[in-house]
Amino acid sequence: MQTFQIESTKNETLQAALIHKINQKTKPLGALGRLETLALQLGLIQKTEHPALQQQTMLVFAGDHGIVAEGVSPYPQAVTAQMVLNFLNGGAAINVFARQHDFQLHVVDSGVNAVFEPHPMLIDAKLGMGTLSFLHDPAMTREEAAQAIARGAEIARDAVAEGCNVLALGEMGIGNTSSASCLMSVLCSFPLHQCVGRGTGLSDKGLDHKLSVLTNALQRHHVDAIDPLQVLAVFGGFEIAMMVGALLAAAEARVTLLIDGFIATSALLVAAKLYPQVLDYCVFAHCSDESGHGKMLEHLKVQPLLHLSLRLGEGTGAVLAYPLLQSAVAFLNEMASFESAGVSGKTQ
Amino acid sequence: MQTFQIESTKNETLQAALIHKINQKTKPLGALGRLETLALQLGLIQKTEHPALQQQTMLVFAGDHGIVAEGVSPYPQAVTAQMVLNFLNGGAAINVFARQHDFQLHVVDSGVNAVFEPHPMLIDAKLGMGTLSFLHDPAMTREEAAQAIARGAEIARDAVAEGCNVLALGEMGIGNTSSASCLMSVLCSFPLHQCVGRGTGLSDKGLDHKLSVLTNALQRHHVDAIDPLQVLAVFGGFEIAMMVGALLAAAEARVTLLIDGFIATSALLVAAKLYPQVLDYCVFAHCSDESGHGKMLEHLKVQPLLHLSLRLGEGTGAVLAYPLLQSAVAFLNEMASFESAGVSGKTQ
Repeated sequence: MQTFQIESTKNETLQAALIHKINQKTKPLGALGRLETLALQLGLIQKTEHPALQQQTMLVFAGDHGIVAEGVSPYPQAVTAQMVLNFLNGGAAINVFARQHDFQLHVVDSGVNAVFEPHPMLIDAKLGMGTLSFLHDPAMTREEAAQAIARGAEIARDAVAEGCNVLALGEMGIGNTSSASCLMSVLCSFPLHQCVGRGTGLSDKGLDHKLSVLTNALQRHHVDAIDPLQVLAVFGGFEIAMMVGALLAAAEARVTLLIDGFIATSALLVAAKLYPQVLDYCVFAHCSDESGHGKMLEHLKVQPLLHLSLRLGEGTGAVLAYPLLQSAVAFLNEMASFESAGVSGKTQ
Repeated sequence: MQTFQIESTKNETLQAALIHKINQKTKPLGALGRLETLALQLGLIQKTEHPALQQQTMLVFAGDHGIVAEGVSPYPQAVTAQMVLNFLNGGAAINVFARQHDFQLHVVDSGVNAVFEPHPMLIDAKLGMGTLSFLHDPAMTREEAAQAIARGAEIARDAVAEGCNVLALGEMGIGNTSSASCLMSVLCSFPLHQCVGRGTGLSDKGLDHKLSVLTNALQRHHVDAIDPLQVLAVFGGFEIAMMVGALLAAAEARVTLLIDGFIATSALLVAAKLYPQVLDYCVFAHCSDESGHGKMLEHLKVQPLLHLSLRLGEGTGAVLAYPLLQSAVAFLNEMASFESAGVSGKTQ
């Protein structure tokens, strides 16, 4: 697979300057909580005391999953394609929130089991009509996984070339919580039952069946976290693999990454195994209600911004968190200092 | 004191219609989590399946506190007036966030120990140059408390007359966490040590001193939660008392109330003791890092939207949560339904 040059954002001089600037603002020390650490991170990513957010962009990667044939989702596979059309018609949740927060929204056909007419919002990156069922075979070949990473990277670079410096990734793919659960179990070394949840709304019985299918699938394949590309090929989806490439290319371009829920974070697990520095560029938007996401975030030792019991995917949580990034940048750039406002400091 | 006619928002027919509308949207059942309960609440408040937010308004009430003479704050009293000037000059955190989210911002001089020049953003409602120290005397008289409630109500009604249907309240007043702690202790029957925190950043020693001052103050006065107006008069501040009136008048006008942090919630404790139905109109914006706020919210049996470790006051947390209200309204009004988008439902 292609290689990426991702720098750490570590910069002690700039960090000290940013902390000094934050502490001079007219507020008690630390009183803006998470917005302060966010402002610091955005400054470090952009290598400046005056960060600015430009052309926020949401890429929704869609793909179908062979594992759906094993009855792991309560929705039929056709819903993936139907939801892609819903995105193109502007009727889905991600459309609503992207409009609210002025996101550029693109939908990427990474490998949906349907053929779409050209549409200005649609990027055709189809690698197939869906993956194979990883209960029997690797979902894709190692070459396909590398190809998907390259294609995702290219799409992210196009967004950056158009002026984007904040990139959010979303996804659509009936069955993709099954992929994410297996990626999580292998890459984080968690027992599978801690990684499997109800997805779009499985019953207790459906959940038991999903766990049993995925347990069998994990036993069939001999993969190791030391080879993340292979893990991705065996259990991933075309949309997840493209997200890996998009994350890495965007971090290479020092773009801020807004990480959504369970599936998006599973793509990040792969990306971070390949290039741990990618984590410096990640803002974790929310903790999903999909069982397993909270544990994934703990594993990464990160704190998400929002806790709203969302479990929709599409990148919705990422877009909902965006105004907090704007607030972080705005207070850093616009608030008066104690000195400029003539406000007294502490006496005790 | 004046009386208010506050209706419960309970309406079973409308509630069923709203839940049906939410459940028909193209998403798994319940997948938008807290945004769904928020959409339901906003529909019930506005008595419609098509709620809309208009002329969002932030009123920052400022007042000084006699208790500051006892050394309960690390900042000098002069900071209250200095921060009012900072608000009027547009340099404080609340200015930044109000601009970001298009809030009408007014600053109310409820009783600051300084005289201000007229300013278009400033509402002069001064009831005095600050309260008395409630270590020795009631902070204000019962008549002053009633007068403050009436004046706060009038200010809220003015905002409503200008088209506001979402009202957020903020505050500024060196020493006002001391008032809020005592109000909380009496009105919620919590021992004082669970209600007292570091405010703007007290040291351990400062915190011990504050707790000892407030313990003495509580012992001096004989008040009972059964007479909330008296509790407010004894321990309140002019800004807190005006917030009580603003909350009640806005709820009377079926306006959505965005509740900020520790001080704003202490005003709500008083308002809700007087008129429990006011709670139907409240959206709890965030859980503050000021120790005691989380317990206050538990006592009210409510869930805040944001957990960002904020402890700034000024109404900042309320304004930061506003885009989530916009998102709730937007998904309810704009998302396609399964039927309109031609998306299949569950098969299991």
